[in-house]
Amino acid sequence: MKALILAAGLGIRQKENGDSKPLIPLLGLSFIERVILTAKKSGIIDFQIVIGYKGKRIQKYLGSGEKLGVNIGYIYNDEWRKGNGISVLKAKDFIQEPFILLMADHLFDDKILFELQKQTIEDNECILCVDKNRHKYLDVDDATKVLIEDGQIKDIDKQLNDYNGIDTGIFLCTPVIFDALEESITSGNESLSAAIKVLANRQKMKAFDISDKYWLDVDDDNALKNAKSLLLEKLKKNTDGPISRILNRPISIKISELLLKTKITPNQISLISFIAALFGALFFYIGDYLYLVIGGFLVQLSSIIDGCDGEVARLKLVETKYGGWFDAVLDRYADAIIIFGMIHGHWLVHNDIIIWTIGFIALVGSFLNSYTADKYDVIFRKTIKVNRMRMGRDVRLFLIFIGALSNQILITLVILAIISNFEAIRRLVVLRFKHA
Amino acid sequence: MKALILAAGLGIRQKENGDSKPLIPLLGLSFIERVILTAKKSGIIDFQIVIGYKGKRIQKYLGSGEKLGVNIGYIYNDEWRKGNGISVLKAKDFIQEPFILLMADHLFDDKILFELQKQTIEDNECILCVDKNRHKYLDVDDATKVLIEDGQIKDIDKQLNDYNGIDTGIFLCTPVIFDALEESITSGNESLSAAIKVLANRQKMKAFDISDKYWLDVDDDNALKNAKSLLLEKLKKNTDGPISRILNRPISIKISELLLKTKITPNQISLISFIAALFGALFFYIGDYLYLVIGGFLVQLSSIIDGCDGEVARLKLVETKYGGWFDAVLDRYADAIIIFGMIHGHWLVHNDIIIWTIGFIALVGSFLNSYTADKYDVIFRKTIKVNRMRMGRDVRLFLIFIGALSNQILITLVILAIISNFEAIRRLVVLRFKHA
Repeated sequence: MKALILAAGLGIRQKENGDSKPLIPLLGLSFIERVILTAKKSGIIDFQIVIGYKGKRIQKYLGSGEKLGVNIGYIYNDEWRKGNGISVLKAKDFIQEPFILLMADHLFDDKILFELQKQTIEDNECILCVDKNRHKYLDVDDATKVLIEDGQIKDIDKQLNDYNGIDTGIFLCTPVIFDALEESITSGNESLSAAIKVLANRQKMKAFDISDKYWLDVDDDNALKNAKSLLLEKLKKNTDGPISRILNRPISIKISELLLKTKITPNQISLISFIAALFGALFFYIGDYLYLVIGGFLVQLSSIIDGCDGEVARLKLVETKYGGWFDAVLDRYADAIIIFGMIHGHWLVHNDIIIWTIGFIALVGSFLNSYTADKYDVIFRKTIKVNRMRMGRDVRLFLIFIGALSNQILITLVILAIISNFEAIRRLVVLRFKHA
Repeated sequence: MKALILAAGLGIRQKENGDSKPLIPLLGLSFIERVILTAKKSGIIDFQIVIGYKGKRIQKYLGSGEKLGVNIGYIYNDEWRKGNGISVLKAKDFIQEPFILLMADHLFDDKILFELQKQTIEDNECILCVDKNRHKYLDVDDATKVLIEDGQIKDIDKQLNDYNGIDTGIFLCTPVIFDALEESITSGNESLSAAIKVLANRQKMKAFDISDKYWLDVDDDNALKNAKSLLLEKLKKNTDGPISRILNRPISIKISELLLKTKITPNQISLISFIAALFGALFFYIGDYLYLVIGGFLVQLSSIIDGCDGEVARLKLVETKYGGWFDAVLDRYADAIIIFGMIHGHWLVHNDIIIWTIGFIALVGSFLNSYTADKYDVIFRKTIKVNRMRMGRDVRLFLIFIGALSNQILITLVILAIISNFEAIRRLVVLRFKHA
């Protein structure tokens, strides 16, 4: 399916000498890039962008779309000072089949388009995604309201007393929208809402409820702040363990914000985290207390940076399966090397042969902890909430950090050996009885 | 969708005082159980079975289907000595919607029904699955031939000179089949083929090509032997490594044949394999050469038995995700315990501290070898053939077996450490460039 993106107008509160709003950078991507890449995640690769105000700059910035892995065509709207309905109508000659209609300055959940494309639609109908919730970041006064009855839009306007939903600016249209626009523009209203009202009067404007997904109309500086908060909030995962939630994630998000200003790739960040762990292990390897302290801090730093690769990838919408896997394999090697450093350092200082056995068991537990986690999550996602105190890598590395600071390598490995193996075996047993 | 299974007649070459053919046991399941469970894998849980010869015995054996997790209704055909068309017609009052029609004595690939159910079918049509290949186990003389043109069956008969496909006995029918049967029976032919011919004459008998999938009509002792060979052949996986292919799989299949005669479950077999590895490791732990030899044999035995859990599960059609995962986790623990036994035994006998480091690295490689294999397979399945010499658990345990027999624990661990880590890192690198 094709997508039409409206990027012609000025923002409501924007002055004519200001920047091009679609090109404002936010956490590694300009708005319009984020819109395009979000749509791409749901399989859309052909885009038509209606440009007007500072249109040349947008065209120069995005080009043919090659850099983003999509095809982009441009439609110039010289009447961009008029209502946004004009912008849509300019696309009439370019689109003959159902298409997705998006605004260049909206943020939205990629699941929305994924589900919207699966909706069935008649030739003479359009669908508008509506939100029935009052979200934290929604500026209700400024939003376009809709009245929905039996899945049909009955009325639409900024000033609507009787409403039960908000226009999200995400549409699945058929070319019938162009007829409706011609009708509404002839009668003197150049806004897209007016055309929606025309279709609503014909009972041909369906509503698609996306209340459970996020979206945001970024129309002023305050909304821009909200957009940033929203994107950063989405980085928290419900599989994050307690240390990750309380300590690592808040710091890693700050680091990611800085990293987004550089050209460092997520895989390079994975490598940096690995190298920090490697140096931590080297210090452990020597065994003296001072070195343990330095090693401990490096290991904890590595644990924090380990969150940044995924954060940067998600914010820049460049997540790959390979990236996640590369990170996981490096993490396993890092885990092993850190434990080896601990064993060796302790053995060097205390000449205590039992440390090898304990370290070996801790390594096995640590591996099995990771090995069982994925599957456990997949099978359990449907049945129970993820345990907020789950035993994961964040906890293991934090225990090592504390163990190094307190000069208690032996006890730390004993604790690791016990709890990580216990957790792996617990998962085996629990799944056995829940899913036998 | 419902399935109708024909289990009323006598086999062609069967005498009236013989066994009930659908109840003949083959590798852990009777024929009719295998038909039902194969259909269940494609989502079918409601069955009607037409019984006649020894019908009571079938009914007593299968009951309401509860044991198999399905619902079974029975239709008694007192005219079972007549053609099999009569059996189908007896179901007329029980089925009002499209249904799958199966023979109780056929073996078939579960993917066939999965795909057949997705075919679109008009109210007045039926679909017959046809095979256009001359398979190894196909008795062409005895098979019912069909002539197919543009996806339509044009003619059907045992004696057909001009044919391009074989009737597999697997159908997607609508109730129109009952009309066709009434027409063909009235005109004197009581076979199902005659009704197919009626529909073929109306241009309403479609052919669905399943040439790339297996099926087998088990109508005599020779076919029974073929059925067994076919089922056992299907146990070989294309992900089997070289040792598995040459040594382990041929033996494990023999053991599985014996295990199928017991009530031992696949998960219990996983445990037995684990325990064999545990004892192998215990012998290694002591370190003297005699113990190494015993341990080596136990480890290799464990490696062989490790194939049986999956084989028994597949043959009895009781595979579960949990079972595969349980086996994988036990394997990882077994790997670790075996390596630990090797380290300890060598250290005890030679008092050589370097063995701990080498063993540690071998463990890491061994684990990473398994950790990376799954993902590698999934990502690569589409692009390249699985390497027939792949480095997997079969190879690792065989190296340990050889190492124990030759009293070369140190060298074995060095080799394991090198090749398993090399393979894990190779996978990381290869996937990086193939799927960046």
